[in-house]
Order: sequence, then C-alpha cells, then structure tokens
Amino acid sequence: MDISVIGASGDVGTETVNQLLAGRVLTPSERLQLVGRVEGKSSSKLFGLQSDLSDAYAEVTPELEVVLTPEKIRGDIVILAIGAPVTAPNQTRNDLARLNLPVFRRYAQAIAAHGNGQELVLVVSNPVELAVEVFSQYLGRHRVIGVGGYSDSLRFRREIAHDLGVRRQLVHAFVVGEHGDNMIPLWSSVRIFGRNEAQAVADVARLRGERVTARFPAEVGEHRTAVMECLRQGRVREAFERVDQLPADLRVVLRPYITNLSGAKTSIATANVIVDLVRPLVEGREVVVCGQVRLDGELSDLHVPVGVPVVVDARGWAQVVPLEFWADEAQLLAIAAEGLRERIRDWLGVQADESALYTP
Amino acid sequence: MDISVIGASGDVGTETVNQLLAGRVLTPSERLQLVGRVEGKSSSKLFGLQSDLSDAYAEVTPELEVVLTPEKIRGDIVILAIGAPVTAPNQTRNDLARLNLPVFRRYAQAIAAHGNGQELVLVVSNPVELAVEVFSQYLGRHRVIGVGGYSDSLRFRREIAHDLGVRRQLVHAFVVGEHGDNMIPLWSSVRIFGRNEAQAVADVARLRGERVTARFPAEVGEHRTAVMECLRQGRVREAFERVDQLPADLRVVLRPYITNLSGAKTSIATANVIVDLVRPLVEGREVVVCGQVRLDGELSDLHVPVGVPVVVDARGWAQVVPLEFWADEAQLLAIAAEGLRERIRDWLGVQADESALYTP
Amino acid sequence: MDISVIGASGDVGTETVNQLLAGRVLTPSERLQLVGRVEGKSSSKLFGLQSDLSDAYAEVTPELEVVLTPEKIRGDIVILAIGAPVTAPNQTRNDLARLNLPVFRRYAQAIAAHGNGQELVLVVSNPVELAVEVFSQYLGRHRVIGVGGYSDSLRFRREIAHDLGVRRQLVHAFVVGEHGDNMIPLWSSVRIFGRNEAQAVADVARLRGERVTARFPAEVGEHRTAVMECLRQGRVREAFERVDQLPADLRVVLRPYITNLSGAKTSIATANVIVDLVRPLVEGREVVVCGQVRLDGELSDLHVPVGVPVVVDARGWAQVVPLEFWADEAQLLAIAAEGLRERIRDWLGVQADESALYTP
Amino acid sequence: MDISVIGASGDVGTETVNQLLAGRVLTPSERLQLVGRVEGKSSSKLFGLQSDLSDAYAEVTPELEVVLTPEKIRGDIVILAIGAPVTAPNQTRNDLARLNLPVFRRYAQAIAAHGNGQELVLVVSNPVELAVEVFSQYLGRHRVIGVGGYSDSLRFRREIAHDLGVRRQLVHAFVVGEHGDNMIPLWSSVRIFGRNEAQAVADVARLRGERVTARFPAEVGEHRTAVMECLRQGRVREAFERVDQLPADLRVVLRPYITNLSGAKTSIATANVIVDLVRPLVEGREVVVCGQVRLDGELSDLHVPVGVPVVVDARGWAQVVPLEFWADEAQLLAIAAEGLRERIRDWLGVQADESALYTP
Repeated sequence: MDISVIGASGDVGTETVNQLLAGRVLTPSERLQLVGRVEGKSSSKLFGLQSDLSDAYAEVTPELEVVLTPEKIRGDIVILAIGAPVTAPNQTRNDLARLNLPVFRRYAQAIAAHGNGQELVLVVSNPVELAVEVFSQYLGRHRVIGVGGYSDSLRFRREIAHDLGVRRQLVHAFVVGEHGDNMIPLWSSVRIFGRNEAQAVADVARLRGERVTARFPAEVGEHRTAVMECLRQGRVREAFERVDQLPADLRVVLRPYITNLSGAKTSIATANVIVDLVRPLVEGREVVVCGQVRLDGELSDLHVPVGVPVVVDARGWAQVVPLEFWADEAQLLAIAAEGLRERIRDWLGVQADESALYTP
Repeated sequence: MDISVIGASGDVGTETVNQLLAGRVLTPSERLQLVGRVEGKSSSKLFGLQSDLSDAYAEVTPELEVVLTPEKIRGDIVILAIGAPVTAPNQTRNDLARLNLPVFRRYAQAIAAHGNGQELVLVVSNPVELAVEVFSQYLGRHRVIGVGGYSDSLRFRREIAHDLGVRRQLVHAFVVGEHGDNMIPLWSSVRIFGRNEAQAVADVARLRGERVTARFPAEVGEHRTAVMECLRQGRVREAFERVDQLPADLRVVLRPYITNLSGAKTSIATANVIVDLVRPLVEGREVVVCGQVRLDGELSDLHVPVGVPVVVDARGWAQVVPLEFWADEAQLLAIAAEGLRERIRDWLGVQADESALYTP
Repeated sequence: MDISVIGASGDVGTETVNQLLAGRVLTPSERLQLVGRVEGKSSSKLFGLQSDLSDAYAEVTPELEVVLTPEKIRGDIVILAIGAPVTAPNQTRNDLARLNLPVFRRYAQAIAAHGNGQELVLVVSNPVELAVEVFSQYLGRHRVIGVGGYSDSLRFRREIAHDLGVRRQLVHAFVVGEHGDNMIPLWSSVRIFGRNEAQAVADVARLRGERVTARFPAEVGEHRTAVMECLRQGRVREAFERVDQLPADLRVVLRPYITNLSGAKTSIATANVIVDLVRPLVEGREVVVCGQVRLDGELSDLHVPVGVPVVVDARGWAQVVPLEFWADEAQLLAIAAEGLRERIRDWLGVQADESALYTP
Repeated sequence: MDISVIGASGDVGTETVNQLLAGRVLTPSERLQLVGRVEGKSSSKLFGLQSDLSDAYAEVTPELEVVLTPEKIRGDIVILAIGAPVTAPNQTRNDLARLNLPVFRRYAQAIAAHGNGQELVLVVSNPVELAVEVFSQYLGRHRVIGVGGYSDSLRFRREIAHDLGVRRQLVHAFVVGEHGDNMIPLWSSVRIFGRNEAQAVADVARLRGERVTARFPAEVGEHRTAVMECLRQGRVREAFERVDQLPADLRVVLRPYITNLSGAKTSIATANVIVDLVRPLVEGREVVVCGQVRLDGELSDLHVPVGVPVVVDARGWAQVVPLEFWADEAQLLAIAAEGLRERIRDWLGVQADESALYTP
C-alpha cells in the first residue's frame, strides 16, 4: 500500500512521516509521498527531509517521493495534515476555516479527478469537520475519516486509566461530537476490563464527581479561561498542575491546549495516533474506532460530520456502531451537531463563489 | 538503565528522546531525564514535551523527568546534545567552541561531582572533540565517546552501498579523524561482504576514481564553496543533485550541509544514530564502533580526541581496534590531529580563567 | 492483562506460549500461566518449558507460572489448546469429541466456579464447535470465541492473494460455518483493495472457475481422498504439488491436512493466528474477526456455534457483523449448521450422565 | 544476506528457523534454506515445515527453500544444527563424536567445494569443538564459530543477575573453555554495571562462596550425579529446586541438563541465542562475543578449538580479545584444553580412513 502525507513539511506531517518509517509500517517496495507546496520554504524543506529520512532509515525505507502538485498524489491512504494548526491563543476555528477551506478544496478536487477512486483519506487538519465535509463531497463520504475523535477517545481512556491506576488498554471509552472545545466525552461508554457492571458504575461516579452533563461546555469554558491566563504569564508548569486537578473529561479537552502553547506542540502524540490507526489498516484488519465521518442519518438522525464509532478497514468506514447514550449526552450531541451544521454552512458560504466546484 | 538527554528541548535532543521511546529502548521501570535550562523557553518546552510524550507513548513509557539543574542528572548513559548546532552558513567551529565551552564545563563538573562515577557520556554537541576533551578531563577518558565518527562511518557505508547497489549492512568502512570538514573516510578500510579481496580492491578503485588522498581536504573545500553558492540562491534541489554526482567520500562530508541548511536539519538521522548506538549498550552487548575518544598514544602516537574504532560497552570504551592505514591516510590523519591539537589548545585558552576548574 | 494457556505442554500450546513471549505481548509485570495436567509427562515438560522460556526470554518475560489444577487459572484471556489434535488420518471428529468433552467440561466448570466472571476464552481445541458450546453454557456465550474461523479466513485471503499476485493485506474474505471439512469459504465476501467492484467480480470468476457452491463439500471429499492416498504412500511433496493445482477455496481446506500429516504439524501457523488475535485485544482495540461463536438467532436464525464475523474486544464479542450471502452459500450454511446441531446434540448425549453439571 | 540452517527438521533447527522468521531477521528479498537429508522423515518434515512457515509468516517471509543436497547450500551465514542432541542420560560426547563426525565432514567438504568462499559457519551441533575443528580445516578457521560459549556466557550473566536482583544486561561475564561439563565460568571476568571495582569484588565473593577454582570440575560431577538420580526417579521439579540452591557457576552447567531431560528440551533458548548472535551480524555490526574458535596460539599458547571472546562480524572472527585470568583459572583452562586436544585427536583418529579427505 502506498501512503501520501499532505503537508509533510509541517510539524505534524514531518513527525507522521518519521513515525511511519521508524515503525516500519511500509515495506521497501511501497511508496511514501511527501506532499507540499511549490511556494515558500515547503519544497526546500521537503527535499531536506527526504535526505534526512533516507539517511536515518536507509535500510528499511520505502520509496520516498517529494510531490509538489496535488494531481500527482497516488497514495492508497492519504493523510491530510496541511494547514495552520490550532496554536495561537486568539485564533478561532473560524479563522482556520477561512484559511484552510481553499486548500481542502484544492486537494479534494485533485484526488477526485486524478486518483484511482479508492483512496482512504484520514483528516488531521482543522477544522476537521469542515475537511471531512469537503472531501466527502468530492470522494464519497465512506472514504473520509477525521482522526480527532480517535485521538480524543484515546486521551479520555488514558486519563481514566490514570485515575484508576490501571493500564490504558483496560479502559474502553468514546469521545463523540466535534473535535475541540465542543467534544463530548461519553461517561456512558466507559467500561473497565476486569471490573463488573456495578463496579464500573461506582468507578464512573467517583471519577466524574457530582457534575451535570449539560454544564460540561460551560465548565470547559471556565477552566480554559483560567489556564489561558496562566499561559499568558508564562507559567506553563502551573498550568499543567492546575489541569491535573480536574476530572478526566475536562483534562482531555484542556491538556492539549497547554502542550500546544508551551513551545512543544502535540505533534508527537498526534502522529502517534495516526500511525496507530494506519497500522491495522495496512495490516488488512477491520477495526472499530471513533472518527469524524459525514453522517447521513445513521445515528440520532444527524446529517453532519461528527465523531462516532465506526467499523473501518483500508476501503473506508462501513457502518456506525450503535451507541446507548444517556439522555443528557444525546441532548448535548444534538445541540453540538446543530451548531456545527450552522458553522459549516457559514464556512462554506464564505466562499460561495467556489462552491460551484462541488459535484455532490 | 537510566538515560539523561542534555539539551532535550533542542531539535536533536527532542528527536533523540522521541526515538528512544518509540524504539522502546527503556522499560517502564527505567528513567529518562529531559535535561534543560531554567532560563529562556527551554523549561516551558520541556514540560510541554513531557506532556506530548506521555500522551504518545503512555503504554510503554519509562519514567519521564524534567531536570533543570545539572546536579540532578542521574543517567547511566548521558547524551550530550546541548549547544548551538552547525547550521548558520558563516558560523565557524571557533564560534561554536566559544559558545559551548562553558556549557560543556558546567555539565562535566556537575556530573563529576554528583554522579555515581560510572556514567557513560555520548557526545553529539559540537565541536565534538572539544566536548570529548573537557568531559574526559572531568570523568576519565574511557567514559566519553563522541558519536560523530559513528555517524560519519554509517554514512560512508551507505554511500558506498548505494554506488554498488547493495544493502548498507554488507559494507564495512570507517571514517576517522575530526568530525566535520576534516574527517577522513578511509578507503583502506572498505570491505564488501560477498566480494573477495581482489574484487573489493577493484570496487574501491572504481568508486574512488583517479584521486589522491592528500588532495581530499582541498576537494572538500572546492565543492563546499560551490554547494554553498547554490544554497545562497535557494536552489536546494540543485545542490542535492550536484552532490549526487560526487564520489562517495565527498558526499559523506557535503550532503549533511545541504540537509542542515534546507530547513529540515539532520535531526532525525542524528537521533537515529544515537539510538542505534545506545541500543546494543542497553542490551548489554560489546560492540566495535568508530567514535571520537581522547587517545593517549594508543594509535599512531596521537594524544588528542579523534575518531577511531574502539570496543565499547555500557561501561565505556576499553581498547582501540588496530587499523592498517595506507601511508597517505596516516599522513593526513597526522596533519589533521596536529591541527586539532592546536585548535583545542586555543579553544581552552580562550577561557583560561576557568581552566582552574580542571582536575586532570 | 494475564493469559492462561491450557494445554501448554502440547505442540500448539508450547508454540503459542513461545510466540506470546517472542512477540512481547505481555509486559514483565503481567502473568502467563502454563496450564497442564498433574498426570503423565505433562507436568515434567511444563517445568522444563518454564526453564527453557526463562532462559530464552529472561529480559522480557512476564511472570511464568506452571498450573496443574484448573481451579488456579487466573488469566484474563484463556487459550484452550488442550486435547488430541486432528492428526491421525482415520481419526474422526467423533473420536475427538468423545475424548475431549470431559476435558472441556472440567475446565469450563473450574473457570466458571473460580474465575472473576470476565475471562475471555479463545478456543483452539477440536471439535471447536463442541468446546464453544460447552464453555458458552458455563461462562455465557459472549465470552467464548473459536479461532478456527479466523485461521481459515486468513488462509483463504492468503490463497487468493497468491493467485492474484498481491499482498494478503489487500484481500478481504471470510470463511464461515464449521471448522474443518465443512467450512464454507465465502466467495461473495471477497474484496480486493485497489480493485473496483466490477474488477473484483471478474477476479472472483477467474479464480473460482466454473464451479457450483453446492458441490463444494463433494469436491473437498474427492480431493481429500486423493491427497490421503498420496500421503499413505509417503509422497508428501507430491501431495503439496497436487493441492497447489486446486482453486483457492479447496486449498484452504486441504493444505493443512498435508502439513499436519507430514511430520511438521501446523503448530507455528496456528500459534501465529492466536497471537495475531490476542495482540489487538491486549492493546485495547476492538476488531472485526471471523470466529466460532454460539449464535442465538443473530444470523439466519441459527442457534448453533458457527463461524461468523463478530466485533471483538477483550471483554468478548458484542455483535455479529451483517453478511450479504449469495443464496446458495446461505443454503450451504443452513445445511452445515443443521448437521452441526445434530452432531453436537449427539456428542453431548454420549455423556448424558455428566450433563447434569450444566447450568445453562 | 542469505541463511542456511543445516538440520532444519530437528528441534533446534526448526525453532531457529521459526525465530529467524518471527524476528524478521531476513527481508522478503533474501533467502532462508531449510537443509536436511533425503533419507528418513527429514524431507517430508521439511516440506511440511515450509508450508507451516509460509502460512504463519506469509506477509514477512523471505524466500524459503528446502535443500536436500549439501552441494546446494548457498547461505552467507550457515547454521550447523544437525546431529543427535545431548539428551540421553548415558550418551557420552564420545558417542556423539562418532555419530556426527562423518556428517560434519560431509557438509564441510560440500561447502568448501561449492560455496563462495566467504560463508560464516555458526556451530550448534555437538561436540561443538569437533565440528569447529573439522570446518576450520575445510573453510579456514576465521570463518567458523561455535555458539556454545556465547550461550554459556549469557546463562552465566543471567544467573549472576538473578542472584544480585538486577537485569541481565547490567552483568558482564564470560564462560570459556569447552562447552559442556568442562566449561569454565570466569569469576575474574565478572563486572556489574553501576557497581564500582570494590563492590564488584565483594559481590563476586558473596555469590561464589568459599570455593576453589580447581575443585569446580569435581563439584560439577558430584551435583550432576545427584541431579541425575532425581531425574531417574521422575522428580523434575525437585531437580530444578535442588539446582536453584547452588551457586551461579554450577547452575550454568547443570540447569540445561534438567531442561533437556524434562521432555521440554532447550530448543527455544538455544535458538534464541543463535538469533541473538545472527541479528547484529545481519545488521552489519561488529560485536565482541564468546565463542568456540580454533586458536592457533592467540591465547595462552593454545592450539585447540576453545571458547574465548572474539571480535566478530559477518565475515568471521578477526581477533581474540585479551583476558586477564586469575592464575587458577588459567591452569584449569590449560588442563581442559589439553584434555580436549587429546579427545579431538582420538575422535578424528577413530575414522582415520576418512581423514584422507582433509585438505588442511
């Protein structure tokens, strides 16, 4: 299988390529495309990166190719990691949407026109839901998956495992909805291997504390303000310590903010999640993961790109895995989805002149 | 075994830590120290990095510790990756020496005073020979090894393998002397597995062309000038293509320049070499590698830090492996060593007021 | 997570333990139980095996424990590999059923009475459907999965990949029904990554040839007779070559026979399949695999243990993945299931005096 | 690099092949030869093994080839694992020598006549010293290494590590001399990483107890008799427990006896040692290992095949690493070497009629 990483000269793209090679995900007879732009420093950096990687992994490296025009993308799996990351404190998802929408369209169009009709696109770029919407329109929605929900779900499992003092692998949990501040960590989905139903209920109650699902978005907002104030004063360590005191679901949302603004970014963990998802696909497995997909009524009558558990293999996602929400979680999801639907409409409207490109 | 990476917030340091974790070199019960400075952005970045790494490798990670004071270094293996890298086109090794000498002394002194007396120090920082000299004075010379020679030797093998169309593992070759422009790729040491003596002689003659050992430094200078001119004009790809035309020994010296100045750096390959060296040591193996060590007459009556093949295990290097040089190679090494001896004397003299710290 | 291998002194059991350790599936703080019998040579061999394994994998080994009484089984995942294998040419599954039923009951009862109520049992022993039935009665059917269907499906994919000249990972296909001669390789389930619908249909037509689903059992019988004749005359190589000429679905059924009767057995491949299934479960993944599970109407109104694709994680199987059979495949499955139902009833009836143990 | 395993249908040979594939030591474009005999069950079993391995490791397997005539051996590394193992309680090394000498000659002659003149032969077969002598005569002594000394040294390190409660990788120690009852675990060579000289001396004194080097052979004899008595009565567990009470050097000699006679054999650990030695060679590394090589005066004026530390890469062993023996250890080695010299002379004399084959 061949893989193309769009945005390979960016932090996440470079680290993704690095981990794909270090983890020997591809064999020497397969191809890894480093996709970037002709303009700016991107192309110089890609040729340098190609040289650095060839040097580092000479013995196990697949064919490495620098690609500067979208029409030459040939990966069976395409990782979309291009576009500005969510780093600047005051940058909004609206700003990102405005910047990245033409980029998303440019690549989606090129793959639709020049690809083999079977590529699987894994979306890292933000706003992930906008990218999923755009690529789904061009390629068909079953071949497009956002990794935000997978990443958030793994983080939620780690935070719960930490509180329980067990290994992450023993914890099952999903984070659904929008990636970012509006994500919904589903306490109803928490299962702990080795603990029976009653014990798990008690565990969740203890970890969660006396809190109300409906207030979760407000809680996120309050704590984010406090954390941002810390960061503005350069007190990174204190910001981490403050977040360490919060319940697991709030930590999932807030810790990546600090890491991203500390000067270190979250590139390594993000790349790790991508490779963790790509590996079973390359091995020919079918797995159940939480990812942003363009629903068309499969769950709660939603018709937006939203994070839900789906069955995935290298050909794409096939079916949504049924979830038994709590009522207040379902309500929160409905609200989030409605907000998302409007925002995507606005984002797409901004560039109404280009929307003629769409062939839905 | 515990490992400390000094300069973990720098490009090479961060990537080294990344690859140590990705490669599962340490077990969860061991410790990895991320060592940096209190001042500047280093400490913020280290806390962010710790968070990113914990997130990425939660399931396999050793204990991660941010260390901001040299006295708290506790690694059995200490990787010195601090200090400005060789990136700026006009930066000289003299500039680097001036900048990094106090840093080398600060850490060497702290480890000598607070360590367990058995640490192995692997030096990545430049000038590597200066760092080897300083640390050898404080810790004893058998516990200090520069990785430049190992890295250069692997590169030389890869370049030869490429020209022969075989896998790098089948090629044996050493690069000795100073790391950087004055390195000496030893054509006399080239052995190709599966080729007998006569065939190997013919191979070397073909790959090397009609060239003279004594002129190698001059050749490096000429081609570097041309390459630099290319880079100054932003023509990175052309610079790589120009170097591709050169013989293997020149490529070893020149290709990393371009990579470093392309915007991509050589961090991934450098970190890969470090991990490739650390892994057998952590596994309890004894290996023969080419590294910068402070000789005291073991080879050609040299008394300087210089790259030679040595037998190494986690306790340090024990003996120099005998080499059968060609006469002109020996002469070149003697010249290089003499120049190096003088430069180190100058570098150390620059800070004569601090040299009272030495306890040789 | 802890793992118990019941029958660790047998060929498949020993090799499974070997591969679990070689593949570092368990961490040093986890436990691997080697379960065998007090009587016979089993216990001596287990202590010897424990010594051999400790010697081989000293640096990475989990806690190894020899267990000689079923009541002491503590694995979170229990691998049932005890009982006579299908090796003797004339041995029938009836013989096996008679021999192994009391063993299955002994272990199922002990785990039900002394376990933690959450063990996942992976069944390798034969007849796999009988073991699944027995363990399902004692432990609840969602915690019991036979690996025969997984193994057969991987083999079917490899055979198809071989015929197409592609890597196995690019082929998707399921083998359902009974493990052994009555298995049903589903041509309808074949998907080839990188080939579109029309191409895949053509591929299947070409690979399958002009054959009829309903005749598949008869074809198996005819070719098995011929192969057995070869083996009786000691012409192993010829037997393999004869099978090499057959279509992929027949090769899946017949090749393991020859391997098993050649003197080499299929232990390595069987153990490999088990580890390939255990690894994602230990990593906390949810995967879709084909396995023998006790259906209760989830598919085609079947109420027998039969191989079907299910969603599995460490807690067991949750749901059956819908299949779109061809009509003649569905018919064949119905016939096979009916035969199986009767056979299981007979097998269980044979020991009617013991069936009082059941607590359905 | 290609590898040939002579005796691939035997326990150690099969397990070696298994671990070479499981550990991905070879790439898909390389070749692994399963070498056996035309006669007996060997060839049937090899074709079955080839099928089992292809099934297990289909995705990562190198080219697998069954070779039934010694003249077709083409491996760059040849592993000699043919011949009866040391299992029967009353079987002497003399019996083995008589049985295996013609086999050793047959293969050595074929490789000398039909090979490429650069094969490296790793000897597992016993008596390892006889095989090393024979192959050294045919191929030149620098291309022949017995793995007995490597295996014994690793075991000695593990036993010491166990007594000290540290990881094996932190212990350095060599076992020299003859493989088997006459091996000499060198207490003088013990170094423990993280312990200084004085501490290490104290550690050795404590672990070793008040014992005399010269009496070591006698001690081995006494305890072996007791252990054998246990085994004759089928009390395997008690035999292991009895050995657990002995000092580390005696455990190294005696524990493998029990494992071999328990019904489990030492195949997994032996294969693991082979792969552990082959891997760095295939990776192009030079390592220091203890192995049986035909000395010609390099150490203590010995001219026999004996276990000593040597520098090894894929081209063979280059130099003996100097050892600082204690005087009584040197004496014991001299006695053992003299006995060995005589025995090899006898063994070779036994078949004086065949010795005309030699071309020294």
